[in-house]
Amino acid sequence: MSKETYYIGEQSLTFPKEVYLISNASVVGKKEGEGPLGEAFDMICEDDKFGEDTWEMAESTLQKEALALAMGKAKVKPQDVRYLFAGDLLGQNIATSFGLMDYEIPLFGLYGACSTAGESLSLAAMCVGAGYAKTVAALTSSHFASAEKQFRFPLEYANQRPVSATWTVTGSGAFLLSGKKGDVRITGITTGKIVDMGIKDSMNMGAAMAPAAADLIAQHLEDFGRKPKDYDKIITGDLGYVGQEILINLLKKKNIDISNVHEDCGILIYDKEKQGTGSGGSGCGCSAVTLSAHYLPKLKDGSIKRILFVPTGALLSTVSFNEGQSVPGIAHGVVIEHEEV
Amino acid sequence: MSKETYYIGEQSLTFPKEVYLISNASVVGKKEGEGPLGEAFDMICEDDKFGEDTWEMAESTLQKEALALAMGKAKVKPQDVRYLFAGDLLGQNIATSFGLMDYEIPLFGLYGACSTAGESLSLAAMCVGAGYAKTVAALTSSHFASAEKQFRFPLEYANQRPVSATWTVTGSGAFLLSGKKGDVRITGITTGKIVDMGIKDSMNMGAAMAPAAADLIAQHLEDFGRKPKDYDKIITGDLGYVGQEILINLLKKKNIDISNVHEDCGILIYDKEKQGTGSGGSGCGCSAVTLSAHYLPKLKDGSIKRILFVPTGALLSTVSFNEGQSVPGIAHGVVIEHEEV
Repeated sequence: MSKETYYIGEQSLTFPKEVYLISNASVVGKKEGEGPLGEAFDMICEDDKFGEDTWEMAESTLQKEALALAMGKAKVKPQDVRYLFAGDLLGQNIATSFGLMDYEIPLFGLYGACSTAGESLSLAAMCVGAGYAKTVAALTSSHFASAEKQFRFPLEYANQRPVSATWTVTGSGAFLLSGKKGDVRITGITTGKIVDMGIKDSMNMGAAMAPAAADLIAQHLEDFGRKPKDYDKIITGDLGYVGQEILINLLKKKNIDISNVHEDCGILIYDKEKQGTGSGGSGCGCSAVTLSAHYLPKLKDGSIKRILFVPTGALLSTVSFNEGQSVPGIAHGVVIEHEEV
Repeated sequence: MSKETYYIGEQSLTFPKEVYLISNASVVGKKEGEGPLGEAFDMICEDDKFGEDTWEMAESTLQKEALALAMGKAKVKPQDVRYLFAGDLLGQNIATSFGLMDYEIPLFGLYGACSTAGESLSLAAMCVGAGYAKTVAALTSSHFASAEKQFRFPLEYANQRPVSATWTVTGSGAFLLSGKKGDVRITGITTGKIVDMGIKDSMNMGAAMAPAAADLIAQHLEDFGRKPKDYDKIITGDLGYVGQEILINLLKKKNIDISNVHEDCGILIYDKEKQGTGSGGSGCGCSAVTLSAHYLPKLKDGSIKRILFVPTGALLSTVSFNEGQSVPGIAHGVVIEHEEV
């Protein structure tokens, strides 16, 4: 029995066995398909209900399709996937449960708000990296309409949105992780603590989540003994324009300048001017589909070599919000690298 | 780098390094304190609001206190706990987020409905077993009043309850897992798939979850090549009286007879006749506090040697239920053994 340990610094890990990201897929709605990344997604559905009767079942269908595509690309069958690590934003994770049950794969249901894309990749990588499975899947979803219903107002109410508000992405990203050698490797993770700065505005998620992202990125760099320039990109999930500025300023106070390498999936996914999406995109699906469609192709072909992927989550519910609680944030970091094969 | 793998059979795992359950604690409400296990709990609060303004914050306090007690018993400080694996039943896991944030420990938020006690122990054991951490914590909670508000009716409405309905336990159980040798060891896990038998009655959770428990137990025995008699107890989380009968009958059809070794935490925790608790207790907290207060002392002193602990979850929300969806179930199995030291 090995005596080795794999934890480094305060919050980070490497893995005893190599972990590869062998397949990925993205499924999005019409609006995301019309955005700047439109051509990169694997599937764009013109009908945001995806042929289902409810928004929740539509979101379930997003997950089902994303996983089917990721498995199809890698010629992996459901029975070859040993675990699913999956979650969504809805109460009791119903998009995940109803979307994935037909696959009959052992499931670890996760909730980290919009950070779930990072949480699911982290736990999936820990699993493969320990030799607990040959192949596992990590996936998350969000849907504009099911999220508005869950967190904000009925769509029919047509409420006005402040400019700091983000637009929940309709989309699901699925990832297969395996010990089998490939051209994209997950080399480490940094797991986030909850950070609460007392922000109480549920229409300004970027501001609520930026401190958690700043904490995570600073700790990650310290744990691994790296600088921002050691990454081609440091990518947050859905801070949006408002949150990006806060993040960069918070890190500058710690003498860390990420302004040259920082990108945010929520900023990339929509055209702010043409699409009326306020501060940017958000939701579990935002970072997942952007990683899948925009960054992974570049990591595969080697045009970028190493990224720190940091999905961020705002840990509120309508109950906690209505009871006057703050909106604490959390972020989970995953290091993804190009591997020469 | 090791070439070993640790998965066995279809859905089970053992661990490269030994995993011990080094400390545990239970905190419950007044009703649970008045039940048959009352004297065994570490803390019973006479005020079900635990001094807080809301039921949700009361549930958060349950988690906070349970973890404090578990750490105190083992003389472990928060900074020595590398990860929290935690969840609850409320939308967006708010009991967990607001309960645990002050500890400033990296958090993996989980959702498996009432199976979360098994899910959290499973992932925590995988983490320690891989050498990813010296010490981690697994914890879950439920609260009668916050759960009624979340899933059923406002308490003020005083609705009638069918006899098949279960009573959500007010309680939280916390567990510390470590590689440090102790007298209770986690030797394996079996991870559940979602099982949907089309049951649509949210007042009969036992019937909804029993098929998932039956599936999990049958697969577990097959994976490990064991028989029910290899366990002193096979313990489900919260099937209650209705679910227990279904479980035993479902397994008999597969020629597996667990009737001599089966116990259910939901049956043990209340006195059905005196406490008016219908089919039994339920909730994430039910199995967690029963494991902590009732079974672990027996595993420590060796009066029982090996249990299969199988918390069960019903994967519904009010949205899925109101939209006419079924109530699928899931179960996660954990093998816990007495270890001679």
